[in-house]
Amino acid sequence: MLELRLVQGSLLKKVLEAIKDLVTDANFDCSATGFSLQAMDSSHVALVALLLRSEGFEHYRCDRNISMGMNLNNMSKMLKCAGNDDIITIKGDDGSDTVTFMFESPNQDKISDFEMKLMDIDSEHLGIPEAEYHAIVKMPSSEFGRICKDLSSIGDTVVISVSKEGVKFSTRGDIGSANIVCRQNKTVDKPEEATIIEMNEPLPVVVEYKIADMGYIRFYLAPKIEDEEEDMKS
Amino acid sequence: MLELRLVQGSLLKKVLEAIKDLVTDANFDCSATGFSLQAMDSSHVALVALLLRSEGFEHYRCDRNISMGMNLNNMSKMLKCAGNDDIITIKGDDGSDTVTFMFESPNQDKISDFEMKLMDIDSEHLGIPEAEYHAIVKMPSSEFGRICKDLSSIGDTVVISVSKEGVKFSTRGDIGSANIVCRQNKTVDKPEEATIIEMNEPLPVVVEYKIADMGYIRFYLAPKIEDEEEDMKS
Amino acid sequence: MLELRLVQGSLLKKVLEAIKDLVTDANFDCSATGFSLQAMDSSHVALVALLLRSEGFEHYRCDRNISMGMNLNNMSKMLKCAGNDDIITIKGDDGSDTVTFMFESPNQDKISDFEMKLMDIDSEHLGIPEAEYHAIVKMPSSEFGRICKDLSSIGDTVVISVSKEGVKFSTRGDIGSANIVCRQNKTVDKPEEATIIEMNEPLPVVVEYKIADMGYIRFYLAPKIEDEEEDMKS
Repeated sequence: MLELRLVQGSLLKKVLEAIKDLVTDANFDCSATGFSLQAMDSSHVALVALLLRSEGFEHYRCDRNISMGMNLNNMSKMLKCAGNDDIITIKGDDGSDTVTFMFESPNQDKISDFEMKLMDIDSEHLGIPEAEYHAIVKMPSSEFGRICKDLSSIGDTVVISVSKEGVKFSTRGDIGSANIVCRQNKTVDKPEEATIIEMNEPLPVVVEYKIADMGYIRFYLAPKIEDEEEDMKS
Repeated sequence: MLELRLVQGSLLKKVLEAIKDLVTDANFDCSATGFSLQAMDSSHVALVALLLRSEGFEHYRCDRNISMGMNLNNMSKMLKCAGNDDIITIKGDDGSDTVTFMFESPNQDKISDFEMKLMDIDSEHLGIPEAEYHAIVKMPSSEFGRICKDLSSIGDTVVISVSKEGVKFSTRGDIGSANIVCRQNKTVDKPEEATIIEMNEPLPVVVEYKIADMGYIRFYLAPKIEDEEEDMKS
Repeated sequence: MLELRLVQGSLLKKVLEAIKDLVTDANFDCSATGFSLQAMDSSHVALVALLLRSEGFEHYRCDRNISMGMNLNNMSKMLKCAGNDDIITIKGDDGSDTVTFMFESPNQDKISDFEMKLMDIDSEHLGIPEAEYHAIVKMPSSEFGRICKDLSSIGDTVVISVSKEGVKFSTRGDIGSANIVCRQNKTVDKPEEATIIEMNEPLPVVVEYKIADMGYIRFYLAPKIEDEEEDMKS
């Protein structure tokens, strides 16, 4: 039996919105550690790894490890029916082919049960090697999102390069080219020291978003190998 | 001659927005009682009954009963041109084939006259029998709207069942099923006691929205008869 | 060499948004006087004249008169990447086929360089005769915009007539007709005295928007000659 009660239900809603356009179907894995998911996007460029640690739930009961295949689009439809202040409980029975999402309004006046069909999904769990990253950049996710959106109107790919001064995002397209440099700024409560020692070759990129204090979503992105070496210089 | 002056013009704007997607053309009936409309939607599933009582108007002059056929989409286009704080006056002359909507800004700086062509609409006024309803549920219209919207992403039809504890909305679709229970809550200023005595068979549903203190819109909905009895149980 | 530094960069962003749907490609002319543009829309109904005076820039260096052909849609894509509080600097080198837009965030943490390809545009600079206008109406641009939008849902053309009392906007379409009268109102800080002496024939209309204190956009509109004289009366 499975029963996971998450007081800040909006976290789960946001997580789904972040994943569902990238991954169609995925297995959610539930164990004593937490509620997790690992999936490749359909173009096999990004690997999504989600973890919501068991300690982050108000109530976490998972009698045995279980893997539940869900269509993320359908799951998102159901989670959208939860209010932003609702408590969300995920319930499953051993051997059942459905999962139930229960939404409770803060004052308990409205209780909703959404039962979703599960699906069998073939997936191999990829081992993600523990890597020593050559560069770590912390910045507000809203700023990172804004830069990606801005550059996508100019070019198709982005080169991210890191130096002691800051991080540079560069792109080039038919209409011209663009460079955005974000300088280190420790005076605000934002980025930790962004230093890089070597940047000789493009590295696989991991974009990690912290989920409150309870976990993360990580996107592992394969580097795009350019034919023209020119593009990697900046 | 007809001259109806409504200080809170936004009421009329909202009423039109609520009706226009359901009904294309309709006769507005004006009498000493008030300004009213009765129309079936094109699929003949819902009957809309609108009443704005004469007392709710700042000035209400209607020399003789008159019925004015209007295209609600065109009427909506014109009413959208009224500011939300504007005073709206509806004017008609005997035998004229137009109606005029006058909008006055609160400070009288901007006066607009919109003259709309009337149309001949065949319609039979249906007698709506005074029914004793087996169940009456009062709830905030925003909450009701939210529930309908949420469930529409799961299934096509909804079963509404009422008990002493509350009202339950249920649906079922390809991706799963959903139940939303709203409990009685008298401590807030919201719903009156929601009690039902008999719920043995599906009843025609009336959804009534109060329009400030001056009237209502009622939607009479025919029940959907399911082939599978199963669907009616909950 | 060209270097124009505009502290209130959002002005340039807004100006582009106002022009780009009307004009596809245009030459920006830079001289000691200021940064300007003159262009006809593709249907040759409106002439756009933009001026940003050199005094309005924090730093204005323009060694020699230069004309830079830009695709306004591409330029708009780049300017959209500037934050609303960013400082925008326009840079060009003699003989270069590109222009650079630099955006600096207020705290200097984020510096972006967008380099855009220039294009050769054939354009003849039209002499706009200094006219004595028969009527001048000043009103809030938001109000004027709202009226144009409202009337466009009723008819295709608008007749603007001016009297001592105010300005009247009239239109007529399939579904009816509309007149909007805006009365003079000097008690607020809005329009100057709106008086007209003669309005015997339709006049070319100039719509001028002031750009803060530093310049203007003017739209010179050709009058639409109606076949039916009726339409000109109101």
